[in-house]
Amino acid sequence: MSKWKNVKKVVLAYSGGLDTSIILKWLQTELGAEVVTFTADLGQGDSDLEPARKKAEMMGAKEIFIRDVREEFVKDFVFPMFRANAVYEGTYLLGTSIARPLISKHLVEIARETGADAVAHGATGKGNDQVRFELSAYALNPDIKVIAPWRDWSFKSRTDLIDFAEKYQIPIAKDKRNEAPFSVDANLLHSSSEGKVLEDPWVDPPEYVYQRTISPMDAPDKVTEIIIGFEKGDAVSIDGKKLSPASILSALNDLGRDNGIGRLDLVENRFVGMKSRGVYETPGGTILLAAHRAIESLTLDRGAGHLKDDIMPRYAELIYNGFWYSPEREMLQALIDKSQEDVEGDVRLKLYKGNVIVSGRRSPKSLYRNDLVTFEDDRGAYDQKDAEGFIRLNGLRLRTLGARKR
Amino acid sequence: MSKWKNVKKVVLAYSGGLDTSIILKWLQTELGAEVVTFTADLGQGDSDLEPARKKAEMMGAKEIFIRDVREEFVKDFVFPMFRANAVYEGTYLLGTSIARPLISKHLVEIARETGADAVAHGATGKGNDQVRFELSAYALNPDIKVIAPWRDWSFKSRTDLIDFAEKYQIPIAKDKRNEAPFSVDANLLHSSSEGKVLEDPWVDPPEYVYQRTISPMDAPDKVTEIIIGFEKGDAVSIDGKKLSPASILSALNDLGRDNGIGRLDLVENRFVGMKSRGVYETPGGTILLAAHRAIESLTLDRGAGHLKDDIMPRYAELIYNGFWYSPEREMLQALIDKSQEDVEGDVRLKLYKGNVIVSGRRSPKSLYRNDLVTFEDDRGAYDQKDAEGFIRLNGLRLRTLGARKR
Amino acid sequence: MSKWKNVKKVVLAYSGGLDTSIILKWLQTELGAEVVTFTADLGQGDSDLEPARKKAEMMGAKEIFIRDVREEFVKDFVFPMFRANAVYEGTYLLGTSIARPLISKHLVEIARETGADAVAHGATGKGNDQVRFELSAYALNPDIKVIAPWRDWSFKSRTDLIDFAEKYQIPIAKDKRNEAPFSVDANLLHSSSEGKVLEDPWVDPPEYVYQRTISPMDAPDKVTEIIIGFEKGDAVSIDGKKLSPASILSALNDLGRDNGIGRLDLVENRFVGMKSRGVYETPGGTILLAAHRAIESLTLDRGAGHLKDDIMPRYAELIYNGFWYSPEREMLQALIDKSQEDVEGDVRLKLYKGNVIVSGRRSPKSLYRNDLVTFEDDRGAYDQKDAEGFIRLNGLRLRTLGARKR
Amino acid sequence: MSKWKNVKKVVLAYSGGLDTSIILKWLQTELGAEVVTFTADLGQGDSDLEPARKKAEMMGAKEIFIRDVREEFVKDFVFPMFRANAVYEGTYLLGTSIARPLISKHLVEIARETGADAVAHGATGKGNDQVRFELSAYALNPDIKVIAPWRDWSFKSRTDLIDFAEKYQIPIAKDKRNEAPFSVDANLLHSSSEGKVLEDPWVDPPEYVYQRTISPMDAPDKVTEIIIGFEKGDAVSIDGKKLSPASILSALNDLGRDNGIGRLDLVENRFVGMKSRGVYETPGGTILLAAHRAIESLTLDRGAGHLKDDIMPRYAELIYNGFWYSPEREMLQALIDKSQEDVEGDVRLKLYKGNVIVSGRRSPKSLYRNDLVTFEDDRGAYDQKDAEGFIRLNGLRLRTLGARKR
Repeated sequence: MSKWKNVKKVVLAYSGGLDTSIILKWLQTELGAEVVTFTADLGQGDSDLEPARKKAEMMGAKEIFIRDVREEFVKDFVFPMFRANAVYEGTYLLGTSIARPLISKHLVEIARETGADAVAHGATGKGNDQVRFELSAYALNPDIKVIAPWRDWSFKSRTDLIDFAEKYQIPIAKDKRNEAPFSVDANLLHSSSEGKVLEDPWVDPPEYVYQRTISPMDAPDKVTEIIIGFEKGDAVSIDGKKLSPASILSALNDLGRDNGIGRLDLVENRFVGMKSRGVYETPGGTILLAAHRAIESLTLDRGAGHLKDDIMPRYAELIYNGFWYSPEREMLQALIDKSQEDVEGDVRLKLYKGNVIVSGRRSPKSLYRNDLVTFEDDRGAYDQKDAEGFIRLNGLRLRTLGARKR
Repeated sequence: MSKWKNVKKVVLAYSGGLDTSIILKWLQTELGAEVVTFTADLGQGDSDLEPARKKAEMMGAKEIFIRDVREEFVKDFVFPMFRANAVYEGTYLLGTSIARPLISKHLVEIARETGADAVAHGATGKGNDQVRFELSAYALNPDIKVIAPWRDWSFKSRTDLIDFAEKYQIPIAKDKRNEAPFSVDANLLHSSSEGKVLEDPWVDPPEYVYQRTISPMDAPDKVTEIIIGFEKGDAVSIDGKKLSPASILSALNDLGRDNGIGRLDLVENRFVGMKSRGVYETPGGTILLAAHRAIESLTLDRGAGHLKDDIMPRYAELIYNGFWYSPEREMLQALIDKSQEDVEGDVRLKLYKGNVIVSGRRSPKSLYRNDLVTFEDDRGAYDQKDAEGFIRLNGLRLRTLGARKR
Repeated sequence: MSKWKNVKKVVLAYSGGLDTSIILKWLQTELGAEVVTFTADLGQGDSDLEPARKKAEMMGAKEIFIRDVREEFVKDFVFPMFRANAVYEGTYLLGTSIARPLISKHLVEIARETGADAVAHGATGKGNDQVRFELSAYALNPDIKVIAPWRDWSFKSRTDLIDFAEKYQIPIAKDKRNEAPFSVDANLLHSSSEGKVLEDPWVDPPEYVYQRTISPMDAPDKVTEIIIGFEKGDAVSIDGKKLSPASILSALNDLGRDNGIGRLDLVENRFVGMKSRGVYETPGGTILLAAHRAIESLTLDRGAGHLKDDIMPRYAELIYNGFWYSPEREMLQALIDKSQEDVEGDVRLKLYKGNVIVSGRRSPKSLYRNDLVTFEDDRGAYDQKDAEGFIRLNGLRLRTLGARKR
Repeated sequence: MSKWKNVKKVVLAYSGGLDTSIILKWLQTELGAEVVTFTADLGQGDSDLEPARKKAEMMGAKEIFIRDVREEFVKDFVFPMFRANAVYEGTYLLGTSIARPLISKHLVEIARETGADAVAHGATGKGNDQVRFELSAYALNPDIKVIAPWRDWSFKSRTDLIDFAEKYQIPIAKDKRNEAPFSVDANLLHSSSEGKVLEDPWVDPPEYVYQRTISPMDAPDKVTEIIIGFEKGDAVSIDGKKLSPASILSALNDLGRDNGIGRLDLVENRFVGMKSRGVYETPGGTILLAAHRAIESLTLDRGAGHLKDDIMPRYAELIYNGFWYSPEREMLQALIDKSQEDVEGDVRLKLYKGNVIVSGRRSPKSLYRNDLVTFEDDRGAYDQKDAEGFIRLNGLRLRTLGARKR
């Protein structure tokens, strides 16, 4: 690849799987570059990362970085995003989107530490992930080179890839010889599946697509009740037990999985311009979103809440499109974080066969005032006469308009 | 009431119940006004409105108007609102809010037909409904007087009301002698319950509060699959059978009720400034919203969809606050309706114990292009090389910023 | 006034003029309350506040507070607002709106210090200022009582007021015996005139309405060139000379006045529901706004700038409507302030007969890169080939739409 | 150019100047394509387009289209945009941006008429115009090929271009042999200048850059007063004389030019990611914008006006970025047009040495009500007591917040 001819050392986001192993080798052989691998435990489910280390060693990786970033992921990325109640296009909880900037951050850091002049990732040229990886990398180091082999190499088919792997004696798991029936991404927040058997949006996803939840139909016919505690907008406890960010999300994932919660089958609009169909599982996140909205309903002022709702789609779009490290995302985060200072208290939820049912919320910072709202005698807390002037002045311009119409 | 001393004839929104009967009599006796009654079938569940007519006659109503407005309600109010995917504060489907302007429209029309100079409603001075009734009336007739007896009369307690009713021989159903355990509103879109037993937002609503849905826990353990057809953004058929707007919503209500769908327990922010807790049941609307989002996901362009998402909270707030008949709501409606021209096709849904699961969508106007998105050979429909330039120029300003930071 | 019968001590915003002197006396005689006066130097032009003190003493004010709040006004209110480029309805620089919360803050503070249970202001029941005073006071002390005598007293005409003043021997300046030809508000940011001779929006304001600017037609036929320096979004120097916030605004006011800059004749929409016509003079503010936009054009990223532009009208509306002390204004301020960290540098302006002409801007934090934009050889800083992919992917959805249309 | 090897016939946006003549020849010689020329009178100042025709003929253009599109330009593009009060980044009136979709529309139409498979334009790879041309073309014909020779050809310098021109005997005006001191675009709405002498944003533009306005300093020391009449948001008359859209804009251009109105020197953010400095002259547009805002101030309801202000920056950005033919621009246009139904009446303006001073506005559809706003006796049109309830309920949530703070 002549365009990368000056690249000497590349930090590769390396999973240990076949595809990124092929990339590792391709970087060595085609570019003649030294390769440094970075493998992260994001909670994707392979908590044992030693095989990845071994494989990287075996393939001649120059340096090998393995990091457990689960707490960082939840604390610095997932939780700030959930403070915004962010959903993309009304439904998607952004599980893949939010992990990419974290990976890029480590790639860029490791590049600096190791003196590498490039980073590389295994995302294709059709998806959003390439954008997220690369915009994050460019923002953090404007001089970094970002190599996306899927856009550059000359392989035309799965067969070409397998041939290349065999040529370089890259071990191929038996079930990887053929293309997977769908493409997967996973981390502590969610797993996603897309492509192949899912490509026709009229066809119901087969049950085997789902990886981290059981079906609502298979979930037990009994209610599980939990209480989530919040401080400054973040979940801090379950049933009164304080837990770290990653531990909370992990515990909620278990609860969600067991109760058939958090499946989503959707058609979304990619930043690169086409629609795609995805199946997402976000068991813990789905519970967390409901709980966060509930504690906000009690502790967030109307003006604050409506402003948050108004800017949320834009904030979600920024994350989806890969602009986590942009000034506008940071400005919106400042606005959101400002709103969360008193978002504190408990939410009680019933989990049941796919349902997350809010059944109670309480807070020392509650803005709910029974003396105002009661149908009983309110002892003067609220003067109903005030409503008359309120309505008359709100209606004044409408009356002026009505008079003009005649 | 000296402030209403010139009022000669009032059109009253009359349900036939005890409270509006007391208002009817109060208007006659305290104001010395002739009373015209308007009773609407909005799908609230009393399809037999003859008792209301009899009661109004008996109490000396001057003229009696009884109208079945269900089709008008769904066609001109509910469906336009659902084109926007409107939800207030992230969750509430605006079931009460959307009925009020329709009632005011009829009150004002009947006032014109009968030469009345005022209209009256039975909403209290603490809620949103007074605002919605009155702003709508003022917008449609800037000279109309709007009487809200709950704000004006001198009754201090339930006992006072009952005494007044007995004095004027207003029939009192046995269960109405004491205050209801909660307050209810209902129409074809939803029913709501609030107050009394619901006033503590930490307390789980008792099962007897729910009126038009069974609990997910009580729903049958089997999946019901349906297909909803759309044209120009509105539902037009169920399982291939064309139905009128009200018939569709009614059929979806039945399906929702039987499958435990559409319950909502929330704390919301009223326009008049306080938080209140409500329990809402919107069985058909909950299904409809999921289906509409799904058909949009296939047929609406990204730019159109994101713009809709961005303005939705504002549109919902306008309806919630009573500004249906405002230029800004009409402007937003023009924008929304413009977007729906090609929102057409079928959505397949699974209804199961509280879940509405989208399992397929198809459309002759689909913008989903498998040739673009496929992991297979796309025969040149999409050039992955384009992504490089796309990302580089999207990242240019971020790189410039990154360089400044150093 | 029976509604205020429990009020014992009131802090009055007192100018020393006839109207607030009448209010002072009315509070004493009608309410039987002790009155504490607060007189502020906001830069309205009466830098000698001693006469106000004397008059308050003479009229029996219990305690007298006189404070020079000019620096506080500019630093904590005007400058934060200018960081947002806030204009209401496209043109109005919010000169009156921004002063009200400051006055209320001092009233509430003094009430606490003096043990007063109420504050009072001299704004009428038709305008925005009553709202701004009262919302601010309620936000800062929810238990405070706010007395607005113009809404409460029984005077029907100017004659009644004068009679009252004479009865209590309040000195009446000769030119105050009749109503002023228009109503005025002034502070260091602006002066406003409205009412009377200005009530017909077709009639050109007479020259005598203007108080702090000469006409562009009367300004000297020569260019004045200045350089304003900025740090973190705030003006800090003129022609290289560091100045305090109030000193800068004051100096810009002089420059604006002399060059006929900052006049505005408009029709605006009041929060209370009607349109009004106002004539505003904001000489320094008009220069400052142009300069701030210019320094932002060089130092603010596009994403940051566009987000600011998008939320600006809402921010301006909040200030106009009196919601300075609201969580949503504070959230927006957090967003805005976050954006200003690198808004630093110099702007050169030409002032000439009503014109503010930006003629240069420079910054150590500039994001302008000549190597990118140049028509000359850019030595590879920008690859024009990138534009092709950028355009193709931006256009992909439009092509898909275009294909559907056929 | 192998990438265009299948192109048989190209429609070229042809000005008759040296650059597009070189492109014409390059398309013929390098691509071997037939070339159809399209030359438009957009009001750029060369009302005699015959020389362009002759030159195209001489160079062997296959077919030659010359069209006067001035009325179409103003009626279908400029006026709809001005209904929105669109300005980009607070200042730029979008004069170049709004002309590009019109040109693309004609290119695509002519391609269809002549059976051409491609269109070509003379915009470079660094600017916004390439994006605007191409997105418009793709939206109108998703199969069209768009050739941007500046991105594709191998010329490295001005000398290369001149050599090519001489080789093919393309006539070269003497002053075109060297590069222009800045780059220019012009149409009936504006002219722009950028590059070269303007590249340093600290340097004041030399006077010779300005092409269609005299300097405020050189403008006559006398006021010109005019009255612009509006219907449905569009200007329809000057001083009572009805004029066509292009005639009005043309007349306003003359008035603006003579009074030194409409110069703008700015730094803007291009869609392709860098900042650039431009000098714009929009004499008529500057007057029109002030007048339109003024007539709206009288006839547009507050809710409508604020909604328009809120969405304006987004609408302007869409036009700037080239998305005229996008569903979201069309949706916003539907919203905007809906608001303009009653925007009708007269605005009186004073033009003076760079100033556009609104001095009066009147309308049969005015919403200004003197009976409401007057300081005089309003005979009950407005009840000041209403303000109390209005403020109390607007302040209720702030008081609740205030109580929580303690």
